Amino acid sequence: MKIVLAPDSFKESMTAQEAVQAMSRGVRTVFPDAELVAAPMADGGEGTAAALTAALGGEHVTAAAHDALGRPITATYGYVAAERLAVIEVAAAAGIDLVAPAERDPVRASSAGVGRLLLDALDRGARRLVVGLGGSVTNDGGAGMLQTLGVRLLDADGVELAPGGGELARLADIDVTGLDPRLADLHVEIASDVTNPLCGPDGASAVFGPQKGATPEMVDQLDRALDVFARAVASATGRDVADRPGAGAAGGLGAAFLAFFDADLRPGVDVVMAAARLEERMAGADLVLTGEGGVDAQTLRGKTPFGVARAASRHGVPVIAFAGHVGEGAELLYDHGFAAIVPIVGSVTDLPTALTRGPANLERAVETVCRVLALGRPAAPGRQAVAG
Amino acid sequence: MKIVLAPDSFKESMTAQEAVQAMSRGVRTVFPDAELVAAPMADGGEGTAAALTAALGGEHVTAAAHDALGRPITATYGYVAAERLAVIEVAAAAGIDLVAPAERDPVRASSAGVGRLLLDALDRGARRLVVGLGGSVTNDGGAGMLQTLGVRLLDADGVELAPGGGELARLADIDVTGLDPRLADLHVEIASDVTNPLCGPDGASAVFGPQKGATPEMVDQLDRALDVFARAVASATGRDVADRPGAGAAGGLGAAFLAFFDADLRPGVDVVMAAARLEERMAGADLVLTGEGGVDAQTLRGKTPFGVARAASRHGVPVIAFAGHVGEGAELLYDHGFAAIVPIVGSVTDLPTALTRGPANLERAVETVCRVLALGRPAAPGRQAVAG
Repeated sequence: MKIVLAPDSFKESMTAQEAVQAMSRGVRTVFPDAELVAAPMADGGEGTAAALTAALGGEHVTAAAHDALGRPITATYGYVAAERLAVIEVAAAAGIDLVAPAERDPVRASSAGVGRLLLDALDRGARRLVVGLGGSVTNDGGAGMLQTLGVRLLDADGVELAPGGGELARLADIDVTGLDPRLADLHVEIASDVTNPLCGPDGASAVFGPQKGATPEMVDQLDRALDVFARAVASATGRDVADRPGAGAAGGLGAAFLAFFDADLRPGVDVVMAAARLEERMAGADLVLTGEGGVDAQTLRGKTPFGVARAASRHGVPVIAFAGHVGEGAELLYDHGFAAIVPIVGSVTDLPTALTRGPANLERAVETVCRVLALGRPAAPGRQAVAG
Repeated sequence: MKIVLAPDSFKESMTAQEAVQAMSRGVRTVFPDAELVAAPMADGGEGTAAALTAALGGEHVTAAAHDALGRPITATYGYVAAERLAVIEVAAAAGIDLVAPAERDPVRASSAGVGRLLLDALDRGARRLVVGLGGSVTNDGGAGMLQTLGVRLLDADGVELAPGGGELARLADIDVTGLDPRLADLHVEIASDVTNPLCGPDGASAVFGPQKGATPEMVDQLDRALDVFARAVASATGRDVADRPGAGAAGGLGAAFLAFFDADLRPGVDVVMAAARLEERMAGADLVLTGEGGVDAQTLRGKTPFGVARAASRHGVPVIAFAGHVGEGAELLYDHGFAAIVPIVGSVTDLPTALTRGPANLERAVETVCRVLALGRPAAPGRQAVAG
């Protein structure tokens, strides 16, 4: 029997790797000889680097970088040497969690730290990059990252712009001649569930600016600045990416990747599944176990268990999903390739206790499902009733 | 596929019959053509009459009776005409829930109301009686019941005793000539998990008296009175039952049944299973579903799911137990015939909500288990991997 373990993290309770370990213990209690495929998953958000690093046997790398306000930090990303693959979450350097609410300043915040991580990965020999765009506090169109990588952003006097999205209003010319030449050999897979364009009412500034600290006036200022940036980028690269879905992700980092890199942008779970070669590893599997902190009607909007179920159904492998919270509309998943949806809580409990007991609860729930599986289908054709 | 549904009630959430209905809905969603055997269970306590009446297609009968203090009440018991079987819970007439705490008086409380229900059952033609001994507020050795049925309890002056266990200290003679002759044709199955003797430090008065309102002085008084009663009973019936396990159940009603009736006393779930002919109905079943509000190490001490599992394992039928609360030591059940133990809560929730949602949660949990069962055993010998 071959079982693929492909859960996302259970938020605030366990990482995807911890979920895989709990699932593994649960299966082993019942089927000690099962072949288990550990495939911790993610959707491009927090935990993506850790999950892919674990799934592919890579390492966690730390690099000197700086946060969105330019303060020195040590940031972590994943690197899989055998595949020359780097996995960078932009939040590791440009993250909202690194800047206190009162300090957030979307006009000056810069993505330069992301560029530092990229340079570090290139120094290691990266030829492929999976980048997760969630959780940024910047709104600079990726300008800081581009500058770090050698792109010169010049004002009308030919002077390099200072950091921050606000500066882009003064952008007059882009000089790409200094762009790190190694980027020509780097393929980027952008994991993003955000499909917003760069500018306008659905753009980065209007939709995501406020949660990064932008006042209505700043939103207007930043939106106009990104529009200036988009025109200059199109002129410099020949790529007009402003209206591409996802260009507005991560304060416009999406646009920078799409315009200056050999990059594809896809839903996070699809990028992660492809990088982890999940479908390939599913071949010949009898069962896939997935899961996430919560499963409900929203799961169908591209969350990890749904992506895993779509992949599994392409291979005819049944999928069972586990969740700490089975919510409204979860039964809709039964029309989309899920064989069963199993809550992991064992009894009435409060949230802190449930979060603490997550791994034990998941292990027990997986064990229980395996015990039921071991009974077999009572009236399967050609089989006798199973003795207890 | 044949599935037996044999849950106890889920206390404060649903009756055994409601649990059967929820289980039935859950199974039907996945296996619409399954043959379902509805066997609501009980352990001799509250709900025993309702469960057996439902399991055997009987009716709920109401009869005029009185409570332990002699106040008129209308009490309910179960009657299955086709089997001439009555199912009486002594709590229906001598119950602790019928008497306010401040009114409880174990010296005067009488089991006479139980006798009234018995007479009603005899009038209907009962030849078999299942009696549940839980929840009484009396401590009269069943004296009140016996008097109602025609036994005369006389003092040294030949005067009939007044109601209550305290009076038995003055008992000088028992005249059984007036005992209702129909009792000779009645077989009684006493459902009791209590194995205490009638008297002494482990007896009815010492162990159960205090919770019925007895002070330490009353315990001594009542224990001595029951001792007098036991000697007189032995003399009158030739049966010395005082030390029989269970004689001390229900304030000594156990002793009265054992001495004056053709009666067997067994653990509650065994009596209920036998009356419901559960094992017979399990024949050829592929699966048994049972359950109770809570399942933990205590379940092994004769609770309904354990009894059901023992019966099922005698027939080689696997058992899955469902519970609102899966507690400490539940995994011990895996050594005793349980194939799986499944919690029914779907997420973090408070107790009132969980109790309210009990039927929906049970239905969903049963559906989930059936979905897993439908997958079959992935690597069962001779079968291909199951397509999703």
